Amino acid sequence: METLNFDTGPEYPKELDSRDELASFREAFYFPEPDLIYMDGNSLGRLPVRIIQRMKEAVESQWGHDLIRGWNAGWYQAPTRVGEKIADLIGARSDQVVVSDTTSVNLFKLAMAALSKQPERKGVVSDVMNFPSDLYVLQGCIHALGDRHHLHLVPSHDGITVDLPTLYEALDRQVALVSLSHVTFKSGYLYDAAAVTERAHQVGALVLWDLCHSVGVVPIELDRWGVDLAVGCTYKYLNGGPGAPAFLYVRKDLEEQLLSPIWGWFGQRSPFAFELEYQPAQGINRFLVSSPPILSLLAMESALDILIEAGIERLRKKSMRMTSYLVYLIDRILKPLGFSLGSPRDAGQRGSHISIRHKEAYRINRALIEELNMIPDFREPDNIRLGLAPLYTTYTEVWEAVDRIRRVLEEQRYLGYAPERLPVT
Amino acid sequence: METLNFDTGPEYPKELDSRDELASFREAFYFPEPDLIYMDGNSLGRLPVRIIQRMKEAVESQWGHDLIRGWNAGWYQAPTRVGEKIADLIGARSDQVVVSDTTSVNLFKLAMAALSKQPERKGVVSDVMNFPSDLYVLQGCIHALGDRHHLHLVPSHDGITVDLPTLYEALDRQVALVSLSHVTFKSGYLYDAAAVTERAHQVGALVLWDLCHSVGVVPIELDRWGVDLAVGCTYKYLNGGPGAPAFLYVRKDLEEQLLSPIWGWFGQRSPFAFELEYQPAQGINRFLVSSPPILSLLAMESALDILIEAGIERLRKKSMRMTSYLVYLIDRILKPLGFSLGSPRDAGQRGSHISIRHKEAYRINRALIEELNMIPDFREPDNIRLGLAPLYTTYTEVWEAVDRIRRVLEEQRYLGYAPERLPVT
Repeated sequence: METLNFDTGPEYPKELDSRDELASFREAFYFPEPDLIYMDGNSLGRLPVRIIQRMKEAVESQWGHDLIRGWNAGWYQAPTRVGEKIADLIGARSDQVVVSDTTSVNLFKLAMAALSKQPERKGVVSDVMNFPSDLYVLQGCIHALGDRHHLHLVPSHDGITVDLPTLYEALDRQVALVSLSHVTFKSGYLYDAAAVTERAHQVGALVLWDLCHSVGVVPIELDRWGVDLAVGCTYKYLNGGPGAPAFLYVRKDLEEQLLSPIWGWFGQRSPFAFELEYQPAQGINRFLVSSPPILSLLAMESALDILIEAGIERLRKKSMRMTSYLVYLIDRILKPLGFSLGSPRDAGQRGSHISIRHKEAYRINRALIEELNMIPDFREPDNIRLGLAPLYTTYTEVWEAVDRIRRVLEEQRYLGYAPERLPVT
Repeated sequence: METLNFDTGPEYPKELDSRDELASFREAFYFPEPDLIYMDGNSLGRLPVRIIQRMKEAVESQWGHDLIRGWNAGWYQAPTRVGEKIADLIGARSDQVVVSDTTSVNLFKLAMAALSKQPERKGVVSDVMNFPSDLYVLQGCIHALGDRHHLHLVPSHDGITVDLPTLYEALDRQVALVSLSHVTFKSGYLYDAAAVTERAHQVGALVLWDLCHSVGVVPIELDRWGVDLAVGCTYKYLNGGPGAPAFLYVRKDLEEQLLSPIWGWFGQRSPFAFELEYQPAQGINRFLVSSPPILSLLAMESALDILIEAGIERLRKKSMRMTSYLVYLIDRILKPLGFSLGSPRDAGQRGSHISIRHKEAYRINRALIEELNMIPDFREPDNIRLGLAPLYTTYTEVWEAVDRIRRVLEEQRYLGYAPERLPVT
């Protein structure tokens, strides 16, 4: 394995960078603070430089000049037009994806639609590693449907992976919906989505994948895997900007069988006929609700091309090599300082962020931010997440990140911070 | 009445403009095409000049430089911070309003919450003049709750006003929710929201007002009127930009009794504790779902100050005078050309847009846009809406709008357009 050939020295990452075929994509991003080590692209991607000009045009030429005409000149088509670009990244036929609302709202729409389609089945399966908002949404769906469903959360024995045999055991003919995160938010565990989807289908359940932490860094083949439903955000590895609108996917032959619970005019067959009775649109548009936030949506749109150009296979290859290099450094430099690995050791089983655990993680994270110009993020109770964005993160930054963490420990800088939690995102 | 003193001549509006105490606010807006007569501020408000700089900062300094730190530096607080500003415009205590999602999604959340609170009552009352998306949302709520509710749509006898006695007759102790638009989207009819709310409360129903077409041009006193629930958009008279995020209001003493159906992490008691069980936040935050579109939200935020500075009383006064002047011109110049008034004649019964009806309305609207550099909007089957935004519309523009419509008719310019509908928004 390649990991055996890594080296802990400061010169070695430069060699890796010099051989990086994606290195030039870094130029597409904005780096106002070259010394900042940003390890949070898994939470909010960096600003693509082109968006500065794009937003100026969107504000001045489109809103300012075109005014209401902007809707016919491209805004109205944006949810499907940008949906087509995202379809390309998730292995979906283009007419199965739209941009709409937020990930949680989309999850609500699709989970409600899926549960309402099979009212006789009362099982919902997820896992304890899922992003809590997803679990809350599922709990809310169950409440809205009269509290007659059962949410089964598959446990994790190591806090890192999900035990697949236990998940498969939970699948029976009572299960209506399996809703999981393709890559879990804390440990970065990557599901074998094809296998889980197939097993769920064997008992007749529908499967809904949350792609927030995988889209843009992991190859996704929704159509090939036979996935029923998916949602995802665009502000992590897609670099769409803070709170950029989310997307949703519905398998083509399911569309007409499912109904969104939120019947808005953008999901109506003829929105501008202004009829008094809702008639769902044919196709994926029935899952739209109403006017999307155009400035945020257009910013996001122009970020996608960079990713499409880089190509998901090359991004995945770099991401795997980069997380492997990081794990190598963690083993040799951070383990002796009290850290343990909070992510799968096998690169094939993880996304593009690595969690490291330490009993002083909270204070270490504060010291990195306040004193060493490094931004990781902290997740309760003891995780520091290091997100590597293969479009712009360099191997040198990975080395530097580990070195700064080492300094915080060796120089005991974390002792200067109170253990009380600040509000963090 | 002041209307008697108006004059149809081209010099008269200049005199009105010279006496307009709000005239200087026009300078706050962007006018790249001085000859364009924009009568669609009721659909998409003009660009406030300050937003050009604001977006540059939001993109470069906040997203580009601050990166994830932006969340703690103000983004995370934005839904409540901007909600406080909007509260000021709608007569609400500041902790009862948040910015979130779209108007239709907010309507869904609040209507579902209201109906779930009173499961024994099966009546929902609205009217045929309501914006269709609102009706669709209500129909969707009823469907989601098992199709056991009845949606009663109060008719309009003239297509302009709603017959209040008929509405009041529909109110009985079976009614759970009355959901209406404060100003109707087509005719601009303005409800006496205080009176309707009081009558609904007499039978124990909850009232939900859609403020899309009234916020920013009509004085709103939600607290004083005892209103239970409200939603509204920010891209019309608030000039927040295309698809800018919406807001919602819940009366303080109702908050803890209502539960949003969409249980997202922004509505969780401690979002960053990442607990597996949803616990609704105390207060208005329980109606939040997840990350809002920050660029769109920040643009909108900086638009609000202009309106707050102008003051809603002065805006209403100008709006009433201006729509009265427009009606005066319609009566004298457009009626002889086949137009009829599609809005209430009494300024106290209407918002800030005026509908005019003509059997060739669709083609007239096209000719105005294509040949005379004027943007009104067309609404099926025969309405042309003329929106007057008192912050920046001038009396001279109102005169000019009527004059251009006159030319289209007298010069028979509309005959050059096919009667087939183009997609319009």
